[in-house]
Amino acid sequence: MEFSSKLLQNAVNEVALLPGIGKRTALRLVLHLLKQPKEQTAILSEALTKMRNDIVYCQKCYNISDVAVCDICANPNRDTQLICVVEDVRDVLAIENTGIFKGIYHVLGGKISPIEGIGPGQLNITPLVNKVKNNEVTELIFALSSTMEGDTTNFYIYKQIKDCDIKVSTIARGISVGDELEYADEVTLGRSLMQRIPFENALKSM
Amino acid sequence: MEFSSKLLQNAVNEVALLPGIGKRTALRLVLHLLKQPKEQTAILSEALTKMRNDIVYCQKCYNISDVAVCDICANPNRDTQLICVVEDVRDVLAIENTGIFKGIYHVLGGKISPIEGIGPGQLNITPLVNKVKNNEVTELIFALSSTMEGDTTNFYIYKQIKDCDIKVSTIARGISVGDELEYADEVTLGRSLMQRIPFENALKSM
Repeated sequence: MEFSSKLLQNAVNEVALLPGIGKRTALRLVLHLLKQPKEQTAILSEALTKMRNDIVYCQKCYNISDVAVCDICANPNRDTQLICVVEDVRDVLAIENTGIFKGIYHVLGGKISPIEGIGPGQLNITPLVNKVKNNEVTELIFALSSTMEGDTTNFYIYKQIKDCDIKVSTIARGISVGDELEYADEVTLGRSLMQRIPFENALKSM
Repeated sequence: MEFSSKLLQNAVNEVALLPGIGKRTALRLVLHLLKQPKEQTAILSEALTKMRNDIVYCQKCYNISDVAVCDICANPNRDTQLICVVEDVRDVLAIENTGIFKGIYHVLGGKISPIEGIGPGQLNITPLVNKVKNNEVTELIFALSSTMEGDTTNFYIYKQIKDCDIKVSTIARGISVGDELEYADEVTLGRSLMQRIPFENALKSM
């Protein structure tokens, strides 16, 4: 696209670097900002810069935080021996929204993905293994995506801690609540059959 | 959503003010920025602020520009008597991409829309009417969206200039090139029948 203004072109190009935003969407967003008061752009720019420069990661769980130890880790009502291993902050939000989990988290910052060039060294795996070896953990719950990368990451961590005397579990894979059986894919349906649970247990969580 | 960081929350809220961007998408974009080097966020913020503060509108056609008179208006090979009336800069881009139009533009900055609270006073209509009355124009081409708002705006402008001795035309509405007739909506098909053109003329533009 040939723009009539270098300033506009520059802004559109930068916005289009964001994931899932193409040139057309970027132009729409930038033109929207042009129609709004100048303050809105100033506030947006400042919020982004401030966030990027000042944000810290919790020393304990590596969750995004404004302070050295995040609210969840600092909460005395949380069971710090029960650790849920997740990929990033979005998963923490999702699990917190259920209101069920009373332990703390360990945010890996991604999953092992050779295609994207992410190896175990770039993830917060070593601190997690150390926590386990220092007997700070009684149970580890893997809550990564149910993909090849997620499974690889689970297995990589499991190999390093399997000799420690802790419980290691993974969240259940099965038919989503409210789903029709006939539309479920066969892998999920197969797993949900193999990993069937006693009906009394299911009754408890209804 | 309850975020673990006020900085993150603030950034997400500001990004979510953009049109078509919800909280979830905003979070995804912001987390993407967090994974990139700090410079990328700085460059993005600066591009937006600079664009918003320094951009000017062409004195002649009200297109977005870096200088007082835009490249198109300043081009001596353009016919300044032939004016294409468009809504905003995206339409200029679209028409320029065809490579067919050799006149200049007049950017209204929107269309009359009572629902969105946009009246004729907020659009660049008066300067256009003045251009016509000062005999600076031989032909006016309306190229607004084919919606009720577009038609209203066309008619509003037409009423003010209909006594002037100029040609006023509107871009053709009809079946898109490459479209199957059976899938065309009846209004478009009806219009394309009523506004049928001599086959010799169609041959010329093939």
